[in-house]
This record gives sequence, C-alpha cells and structure tokens, in this order.
Amino acid sequence: MTTPTNKVIVTDPPRADLGDVDTLAKFGVATVHEALGRSCYLGPGLRPIQDGARTGGSAVTVLCWPGDNLMIHAAVEQCRPGDLLVVTTTSPCTDGLFGELFATALAQRGVRGLVTTTGVRDVADLRAMGFPVWSAAVSAQGSVKATAGAVNVPIVVGGQVVRPGDAVLADDDGVVCVPRERIAEALTASQARLEKEEAARAAFRQGQLGLDRYRLRATLADLGVEYVSAAEHPERQR
Amino acid sequence: MTTPTNKVIVTDPPRADLGDVDTLAKFGVATVHEALGRSCYLGPGLRPIQDGARTGGSAVTVLCWPGDNLMIHAAVEQCRPGDLLVVTTTSPCTDGLFGELFATALAQRGVRGLVTTTGVRDVADLRAMGFPVWSAAVSAQGSVKATAGAVNVPIVVGGQVVRPGDAVLADDDGVVCVPRERIAEALTASQARLEKEEAARAAFRQGQLGLDRYRLRATLADLGVEYVSAAEHPERQR
Amino acid sequence: MTTPTNKVIVTDPPRADLGDVDTLAKFGVATVHEALGRSCYLGPGLRPIQDGARTGGSAVTVLCWPGDNLMIHAAVEQCRPGDLLVVTTTSPCTDGLFGELFATALAQRGVRGLVTTTGVRDVADLRAMGFPVWSAAVSAQGSVKATAGAVNVPIVVGGQVVRPGDAVLADDDGVVCVPRERIAEALTASQARLEKEEAARAAFRQGQLGLDRYRLRATLADLGVEYVSAAEHPERQR
Amino acid sequence: MTTPTNKVIVTDPPRADLGDVDTLAKFGVATVHEALGRSCYLGPGLRPIQDGARTGGSAVTVLCWPGDNLMIHAAVEQCRPGDLLVVTTTSPCTDGLFGELFATALAQRGVRGLVTTTGVRDVADLRAMGFPVWSAAVSAQGSVKATAGAVNVPIVVGGQVVRPGDAVLADDDGVVCVPRERIAEALTASQARLEKEEAARAAFRQGQLGLDRYRLRATLADLGVEYVSAAEHPERQR
Amino acid sequence: MTTPTNKVIVTDPPRADLGDVDTLAKFGVATVHEALGRSCYLGPGLRPIQDGARTGGSAVTVLCWPGDNLMIHAAVEQCRPGDLLVVTTTSPCTDGLFGELFATALAQRGVRGLVTTTGVRDVADLRAMGFPVWSAAVSAQGSVKATAGAVNVPIVVGGQVVRPGDAVLADDDGVVCVPRERIAEALTASQARLEKEEAARAAFRQGQLGLDRYRLRATLADLGVEYVSAAEHPERQR
Amino acid sequence: MTTPTNKVIVTDPPRADLGDVDTLAKFGVATVHEALGRSCYLGPGLRPIQDGARTGGSAVTVLCWPGDNLMIHAAVEQCRPGDLLVVTTTSPCTDGLFGELFATALAQRGVRGLVTTTGVRDVADLRAMGFPVWSAAVSAQGSVKATAGAVNVPIVVGGQVVRPGDAVLADDDGVVCVPRERIAEALTASQARLEKEEAARAAFRQGQLGLDRYRLRATLADLGVEYVSAAEHPERQR
Repeated sequence: MTTPTNKVIVTDPPRADLGDVDTLAKFGVATVHEALGRSCYLGPGLRPIQDGARTGGSAVTVLCWPGDNLMIHAAVEQCRPGDLLVVTTTSPCTDGLFGELFATALAQRGVRGLVTTTGVRDVADLRAMGFPVWSAAVSAQGSVKATAGAVNVPIVVGGQVVRPGDAVLADDDGVVCVPRERIAEALTASQARLEKEEAARAAFRQGQLGLDRYRLRATLADLGVEYVSAAEHPERQR
Repeated sequence: MTTPTNKVIVTDPPRADLGDVDTLAKFGVATVHEALGRSCYLGPGLRPIQDGARTGGSAVTVLCWPGDNLMIHAAVEQCRPGDLLVVTTTSPCTDGLFGELFATALAQRGVRGLVTTTGVRDVADLRAMGFPVWSAAVSAQGSVKATAGAVNVPIVVGGQVVRPGDAVLADDDGVVCVPRERIAEALTASQARLEKEEAARAAFRQGQLGLDRYRLRATLADLGVEYVSAAEHPERQR
Repeated sequence: MTTPTNKVIVTDPPRADLGDVDTLAKFGVATVHEALGRSCYLGPGLRPIQDGARTGGSAVTVLCWPGDNLMIHAAVEQCRPGDLLVVTTTSPCTDGLFGELFATALAQRGVRGLVTTTGVRDVADLRAMGFPVWSAAVSAQGSVKATAGAVNVPIVVGGQVVRPGDAVLADDDGVVCVPRERIAEALTASQARLEKEEAARAAFRQGQLGLDRYRLRATLADLGVEYVSAAEHPERQR
Repeated sequence: MTTPTNKVIVTDPPRADLGDVDTLAKFGVATVHEALGRSCYLGPGLRPIQDGARTGGSAVTVLCWPGDNLMIHAAVEQCRPGDLLVVTTTSPCTDGLFGELFATALAQRGVRGLVTTTGVRDVADLRAMGFPVWSAAVSAQGSVKATAGAVNVPIVVGGQVVRPGDAVLADDDGVVCVPRERIAEALTASQARLEKEEAARAAFRQGQLGLDRYRLRATLADLGVEYVSAAEHPERQR
Repeated sequence: MTTPTNKVIVTDPPRADLGDVDTLAKFGVATVHEALGRSCYLGPGLRPIQDGARTGGSAVTVLCWPGDNLMIHAAVEQCRPGDLLVVTTTSPCTDGLFGELFATALAQRGVRGLVTTTGVRDVADLRAMGFPVWSAAVSAQGSVKATAGAVNVPIVVGGQVVRPGDAVLADDDGVVCVPRERIAEALTASQARLEKEEAARAAFRQGQLGLDRYRLRATLADLGVEYVSAAEHPERQR
Repeated sequence: MTTPTNKVIVTDPPRADLGDVDTLAKFGVATVHEALGRSCYLGPGLRPIQDGARTGGSAVTVLCWPGDNLMIHAAVEQCRPGDLLVVTTTSPCTDGLFGELFATALAQRGVRGLVTTTGVRDVADLRAMGFPVWSAAVSAQGSVKATAGAVNVPIVVGGQVVRPGDAVLADDDGVVCVPRERIAEALTASQARLEKEEAARAAFRQGQLGLDRYRLRATLADLGVEYVSAAEHPERQR
C-alpha cells in the first residue's frame, strides 16, 4: 500500500540548477513564457506585494488545508539556499497563511521568496525586510495547525502544475514555472527571443510597423479585413 | 453589401481637439464625469499600472478576438500624435495582449497611452519608460495573431461606448470617455464644477457642514430620518 | 412604536478610549486579530489606497443606500477628533461615494481616516493630503443624495459587526474592529502575543524551526504524515 | 474570564414561535423583507438547490472553520422540531460541508432545512428526500473535523446578523432573517403589504399604471425628467 | 441646450417588425448570433429564471439608478404589445428591481418578457404566470423610487448596445440584440446558417467528421500540429 | 527536438476499463472523492446543464486557445465508445465552444458526455437529446478555428490534472477525475465508504448523533469547546 499523496513530506527532491535559474530570472517572466511556446504562466491572479522585485528559485511545494498552515512549518525544514516556496490549498483560501515570522525563518535558510494562492500578512514588514512575495490576496486572517497536507508533491497553481525542483521565476508580470526538464530549452529559446525583441525594439524606435515586420498585411487580407476611410464609412453605432 | 463591422479598419477618423483634451485632462476624471451629469465613466475595473499619471487623448479604438492582438498591430499604423489607444475583446480576456514593444512603437508615434479591458505585460518596463496604461489586469500570457477584428469602430468599455475621436481622459481614479460632440459641454461644466468644488473646499476647511451647504437637513426631515441620542436609543444589534 | 433602525441618526454614541486605540494601532492589525482569538478581521476585500499608513479610531458608522452618500453628510456632523468613519451600503456598491471634499471636512474635525465597502475617488488628492483610506474599490462614479439611511447604528463590514464606538484599526494588512467591551482583553492579549512573536523571531533568526518551537512534529505524526525521500517516492503526477 | 465566543456551544437558546414562523413563511421572503423596511435579506448569493420550496424555522446557528464541519455535528444535538440550521465559516469556503447524512439526522429531529454560506453535496439525494437547502455553492469537496467553532452564537450571513432563535424564512427568492423581537412587527406589516400588493395587482390587471397609482408623475417632474418624442429626439448614440 | 440623455423619456420610438422578430426568435439565439458574424450576444451573465422559454420583442430600454426602479414605472407606460423590456443601471446592481407586480402590468400590455442586468424577485410567481425573464441575479432586495434615469435611450447590456426598437431575442442560451437596421441581414443569414447546420447534423449523424467537412486537416497541418501515437509519446506531465 | 506539448494530437491513448468506470459512476462523485482521501474533485465551478444526470467515461482531453474550438474537431476523431470529452483553454474563456452539432457527432461515436471549463450553447437541444454536459458557463458566443492546441495531453481542470484515459465521473455534485492507476484503489475504498455511509444513515434515522458515532465529544473537549446554557450566556452581539 502506497503513502497517500496528500499526507507525505518528500525529502531531498531534485533541485533546479541555480545558475540556470538566475539566468532565466534575468530574462523575465514574459520572455520565458513566450520562449516556452506561451505556456507555464501561473496566471494574472498572483500579484506581487512589492514593486520591482525579480527573483527565481528551485520550487519547494506545499499543499495545505484551507485555513491551516501546518505544512508550511514542515516545508521550512526542507528548504535550502536558492529554493523558492510555492504554496496552495486543497480548496480556495484567501487567509493569511504566511507572514513575517515565516519569512524570517526562510530568509535565514537562504530561500528566495514565496509564491502562494492564499493570502499573506505583515506585508509592511515583508516589504521592509526585502523578502519578495507573490500572492492571490493580502489578509490578516490567521491559521490553525490541525490538518495534514503534503510537502514536495506536484501541486497546481494558476492552472499549471508545479513540481518540486522546477524553476519558478517571478517579477512584476507574475510568475512562471519552468519544468526542470525544459530548463535547457527555456534558456536557449529565451536568449533567442531576447535578441528578436531587441531587434524589433530598435526597428520600432525608427518607425517600422509590426504590420510590416511580422508580415501581417497578408494575414489581414486573407482574413477579409478591409480598409475604409471614415468619410466612406458612416460611423456606425455598434 | 456592406463591410461587416467586425472586419474593418477605419482610416482617418475624426479627432478630438488636443487643446480641449488637455484642458479636460487637467480637470481630472471625477470632475469631468460629474460635469457630464455623472455619466461616461468606464468603471472601477480599469486600474492604472502606475501611480500619479494623468493623461488624455483622442481615441483610436481596437476590437480584438480573445487571446489575439493582430488588430493592435493594425491600429498602430492608424495612430497620430495625441491619440490614445483603447482596446477591448469580443469576449472577456485577461491575457497580456500589450507590452513594452507596442509601447515603444506607439511612443514613437506620439501616442499618449493605453486603456484596455485586457491584461498588459512588461509593466516594469512600461513604468520605466513612462508610457501610462490603464488595464483590467496584469498578465504575462502571450497572444496569437490569427483572427480578424476591427480598428476605429465604436466599442464598449466598462459599460460605455467609446468611438474613435472621443476624448478619453485617465488618472488615478480611472478613465472617462467624453463623446466628441459633448466636449464643449464638458469644458464649460467642468470649469463650473471646479469653481464650485473650490468654494466648498474653502468652506469645509472653515468648518461648514455639507448638511448646511447643500441644504440636506430638509432632505433628511422629508425622508423621515430622526435624530436620537444614544442614551435614548438602546444600542440595537442590527 | 420605535424608530426604524434604517432611518435614524444616533448622536453622542459611546467612544473608544483614544489612548487605548493608539496603543492597539501600534500592535498592528494582524497581531490584534490573533490576540482576539483570530476574530474581528474585516477581510481581504478592504484594501488601502496608500502604502504604509497605520491608524485607529473610534467608529462612527454609516449605512447608505447604493449610489447615494446622503448619510455620509449627516455623519460628518457626528464626528469628533479621534473618530474613524466606517461606511457601508444596504446592498453592494462600488461607486465613489467618498472623495477629497469629504476628507477635507473630516480632517478639519480631527477624524483619523475612512473605511468603506464602497469605492472612493480623488485618490491622488487623498494620498497627497495624507488622509488614510481603506476601501473595496477606487471609482470616480458619483452619487446622489436622495435616500435615507442611518448613522451610528451597528453595521456589517466584511462579515463582522461594527458598532459606533468600537475601536477600528487599519494598516497595510487591512482592518480589524475591536468591540469596545473587548478592548481591555485586546490590549493584554496583544502585548502577550507581541512578546511571543519577538521571541519566535529571535529564535528563527538563529535557525530554530517552527516544527520544534511549536511541537508540531508530534502533530504531523498523529495525523499520519510520513517522510519519504524523493529517491523512494517516484515523483507522482498529481 | 468569559468563554471566548468562538469556542462555545450555547444550549437551550430562545426559539421563535413556530406559529408565527409559519405565518411569515407564507407571506414569502420578498414581502417580509419589504415589510421590515427593506432590511434583513441575506442577499442574492444564497440560492436554493431545488425549485419551489418554501420554509421557515427558528435559527440554530453554526460557525465553522473553513474546510471543517465539526461544529455542524455539535449543532445537530441542539436542534429541535421547527428549527432551521444556519451555517457559516470564519472565512469564505465553498466546500461541501453538508450532505445527505446530515440531512437524514436533521430530518429525524424535525429540522426544517438548511441555509449555508458554504457548499453542499449529495444534492440529488437532498432533492429526493425533500430536505430544502439554500447555499452559496454545490461542491463535493469533503471536510475534516479538527478545529473548534461555535454553535448558537450570533453569526453574519450575507451581510446580516443571524442570532439563534431568529425566524429564518426561505423560498425561491432567497432567505430573510427576522430578529425575534421584530416578529410581531413583521407579521403586522407583512399582512398590510400583502393587502396593498393585492390591490395593486387587481388595478394593474385593469390597466392602471404605477405612475398614477404611486403618484410618480410628480416625482419625475420634480427630478427634471422630460418627455421627448423620438421624432424630436434624434436617436443619440450613447 | 439639449435634454441630458440621462433624464429623458423618449416616446414613440421606432419598433422592430413583429413578424420579423418572431421569425428570428425561432432560429434561436446562437444561430442569430452566428448569422451576424458572431456579434450582438449579450453575454453569459444573463440567465433565464425558467427553462425552455424562447421569446423576442422590440426593445423598450430603461436606465435606472442602482437600487431604484422609478424609471421602470415610467417605462411601463411606453410599452405596447410585442415589446420586450430591457433594463440596466448606471452602475452594477443585483437588487430585485423587478417582480410579479411589474410583470402583471406588462403582461396586461402585451409585453413579451424582461431582460435585466439587475436582480429580479417573485421568481416562483413569474414562472407560474409564464412571464419570461432573463436576469443577472435573483434577489428579494427592494428598491426606492427617488432618482432620475431614462427610458428609450441606447443602453449597454453585456458589452453590447441596445437601442429602443432593436429586436431582442432570448432563449435558454441567453439573449441577443439585433440592431433594427440589421434585421433583414439577420433573417437571410440565419436561414442560410440553419440550412448549413441541418446539413452538417445529417452528415455528423452518418459519421462524417468536422475535420473533413470543414477542411480542418489542412489548417492543423499549416499550424504545425502533429499526430503522435501514445506509444511514441511518453505521457508527459504537463 | 521534441514535439511541443501544445501542438500535438496523441492517438490511441490508454483507456480506463469501462466496467470499472461504470461501477465508480454508480458510487457517485462525492463518495469517490472521499474514497480517494478527499482529492481529485474538479471543484464547484463546473455545473451540470441538466438535473439528474450521472455518467462516467475514459477521458479524452482537449486544450484549446480561448475563443477557438479547432482542437475539439480534432478530438472528435480520437473518441471511441465509452470516452468522455474534457475540454479546457490556455487562458480562461466562457465562450460557447461546444454545442449540439458536436454532441451529435460525439453521440454517434458513443461518447458519454462533456466536461468543459468553457461555456456551452444549444443547451435546450443538448437536454432534449440527453447528451450530458458539465460546464463553467452557458454562452451562445461562437468560436473560430484558427489556433493550434493539443489533444490527449494532460490538462488542468478545476485545480486537478486530467490525463487521457483517466476515469472521469460526473453527477449533480460536479465532476471527479480518478487517475487510471488509482482506479483499483477507488473501487475498493468507495465500496467501503458506501457501506460505512449506509450504516451511518441507518443509525442517524434511529436518532444516533454524529457526536457519538464519530467520537467527537472528546475532540470538542480537547479543543476547549465549552457548553453554556443561553441563560448563563448573555447573548453577545458578535
């Protein structure tokens, strides 16, 4: 009989290479997401509690019961320098499962930050200490420590699977999770995309149009989009 | 047979007078909304991605398919200095249809900013370059360029119609759209309201009450509202 | 026959002691909420329009009709130095029932700030003048003054009852309402909690784990949570 | 030192008179809400899981932790014939805290139905057995029994306070809670409203207009509303 | 000086031809929406309060203040047989602005039904009397009659403009609004679409695939979609 | 170079045993969810468009672009008798991606039903033909067929991973997805739970309390919950 997934703490999970993580973080969330074929983005529901932070780490995952942060305590022990904690609950919960005391413990262990589908609290303190957080809410609502969950099992955040050891990157645009086996692909494709974007930026600054650069005039024509001057097109009401 | 509204790019639409737009922008969104009889406000769902920006422009409108920014590319070409881009989709979409590359192209053309019911991305870059944006979401989720839409047709944003050439104003309180034919009315009424507000401000600073200034004591009496001291009014529970 | 609760202005309600209010405000919202047995928090839906504000006051409560701020005018007259205005509506409303003119009048009377389940407007001005606000929305949408409501009756905000004279505290984590009769309990328990948190913080900085500090290893064992190394736990997909 | 509100089971609360409850239930939720001066309605978020049910009972209240139905078990014992169970959680929760087994136990004790801000499950069974339920969600998500709460303390549901022994009435329009001390007022005013509605219905069937019956033509004129024929009013676009 | 749009009752608006309306209603909402180039649908937020109703009418439009149904009273007088009432508010409102008494008055005048972005009440009575309603909510919350609005001006519902005299059609799939000047186009295109759907239905019943019928295999190939057997495609985790 | 996950159609995926699926479906969604340790439930956001349906099938999964149902066409070809189609989009979408024509094609192939995070349309027809659907919305909004996606790759629905060949079960309580490798566990544990529930039901019918049956009195005492009579517990206001 196997251990149920939802009552287990997995120790010594694989880790993403921190050099790779740091390189990816510099590309930024939007670029890496595009590089991966527009996938792996954790959605607009996770917002930073601070402006201008950009970080990345190897995911340590936590699955809690709503209103209960017992498993975050268990997860702290599993964290190493370069990790980034990713927390969700078995059903939606905006309570403040995480606050400054947890951040103090995690900072002491070299953890890079927190991503959570729940709320967080002590946000003034978290900003002051520079511990970056992306969360679905800010809430002072406190937690109990009464119900089992899991650490370092695959979890779902924002419609994407996050597994322990995946590379999780976060900035002002939100959070992206790069599966560990796709990190090499992400590095190569992000660099390519960065170069492509730089070329486009330079061209746009000189007045080139995306219509021309991306050959979209043909697309518009194929789709049957017509150009009509306002003079010939009596302004319609809908 | 007419061109379907939803597959057309209207060129050379009328423009709002930029001098008028700039005057209106200085009044601020709340004042202009009040001046127009409490109408034309695009609702609390559009939030600035930056603090303290205040701008206005002549609307260039874009109607996209969800998950698709093809028509924004088409719209860039239609933009002139003093325009402000207003984007929506045929059904709700929070994806990041707009980012820093578009802003670079628009800034090069003298566009004043962006209002969109979708998400935007590269927000750190947008803030850094000073291109102001009001959107319904921040999202790194990328787009395709595969489905037709329209440029410079009337669209609906936040329950209000926005037509090309309307004066669109935006600040920390959100966005208001002044129909081009009501701009003169808006200028006059906003100035009147500004003066009224300044007089009220001065009076309130000296301790006058709104109850007296706006003759609301009679309203309260007419409505049957009674004054009761807490001593006579045993505190009730609901 | 009694005056209906919803058409009354109660004068001279009891007030929370301002010295107590100020002491509680310094503890912060999260600490006071925990000290009260994790109760009295007004939920994650009330967000500050500014960063870093922390205040407290004796509640003056207002119950308005949606889209109508008549009763806020009536409430201003009932306010004294040290009060904090708490506003809600009989059904949900995000309109901007409150703006800078009200804040000017309230500041003149020594009011500490505003908490409202509605929207507010003139947020740039409110930030500039330093009048702190916690609200459910920012909206320029204006109001009428046509329908009766109540001042200084118990109201419900974020699932909690707020009565006139309760101590309302607000910071970056949101808002907590301490019933006047529980203020003494809150003071004692908050101080105790503060000391407990300081001790925990010091311990965590030195590397102690919450698992040990709060004796949670036994809890995990009782609940049947097992430790498994990743090597023995073939990474499962869900 | 008093027992904390959130860890107590109050026994033998007062009960609403069942004859009164049954009379009120027949008037219907909308009529009783109007009779109480348009108050006490628990909002549009509570929906029946069945069509056509109409019931009422004396409230037994339950406050649970999210994801935890321990206190519902405690509440069952406190229920008597004619009671109606009203459940909420300390923070929002859509989990299925209640199902057919609870309904079986409650039906055996003569309980009239359930109102809950959480989810419910086994809805096919609940419909089949005729146990009426009003809830915020349908969800199969199960619960633990690990955290304390309270029974028969005042709770907040849909922005209204519900106390044990209040008369709770529910039909296809939702749920209304009549405070026990206002039941007599509700009976008298509901009967008056019923008669007024019947007279209006008869008049409307014969073609009278509300404009005339409620003397609203004067209101429109006072407010400055004008009548304009479409021929004179060029159809405007917004 | 013109009459402000938001304080006017427009009389004798144009009407959609009822024969056309009835023909369109038989096609159904989805078919007419498709026939109009996938436009004019009022969105998934408007739901029927009954199953199986299908109706259509010439729009009489109403713009109310939130929490206020004064203008619905004014609109009743403007209604003729074959009309369908369409109601919205100046800012979002779920209150029960409409109930059985209004339906009685409208049925007496031959009105076909109601579409509203607000709530409705007396839904059991409305179902029993067969007056069909599409609304955003069910709510017993009552209204005042204190603030001006407009009748028979263009309004926005579900992101679409509805003008008086447009053909509004509703069934279990929701509501579509056909601009009066597009009715002829809608009739022709709906009939064409109906025939196309019938042919497709017959073909699908005999096992033809949409891939073949709509020549989508080429589309898939052009887009770079590949076929891989599960045996060759080790099941990936995301 | 591997095929990107999001541009692939996987053929001949493993299938769940239909005998097992049918046995699980009879247990019902809530029972199977509990049997799996309270996991695998797809959440309260997926609602049936009909009452009383109960079905199960082997999952064929589809990942579409928002507003685009191209990949559903591709998926039809992959379906066999006993399959159940499960659809989601790369970002949230309530459009009606599925309607009666698809259902006709799927019924012809012996498919058991549809689960989708999008909207569906033609719901009257779907009910009439008895093709059961669980969806997040009803919407007439039509789709394009322009952007690539995937068939038979793992997708995320309601916070849970659904892989091709998993056993998906649905009834009035929503949808549960049993991973193929856990089907045996689900069968055994569901039967055990069913028997336990039947015993509890019989006991509750005879008046036994859950407090006694589940030994919860000790839990309450351990948690410090006290019993106080209403007479000794002056009714508190919060």
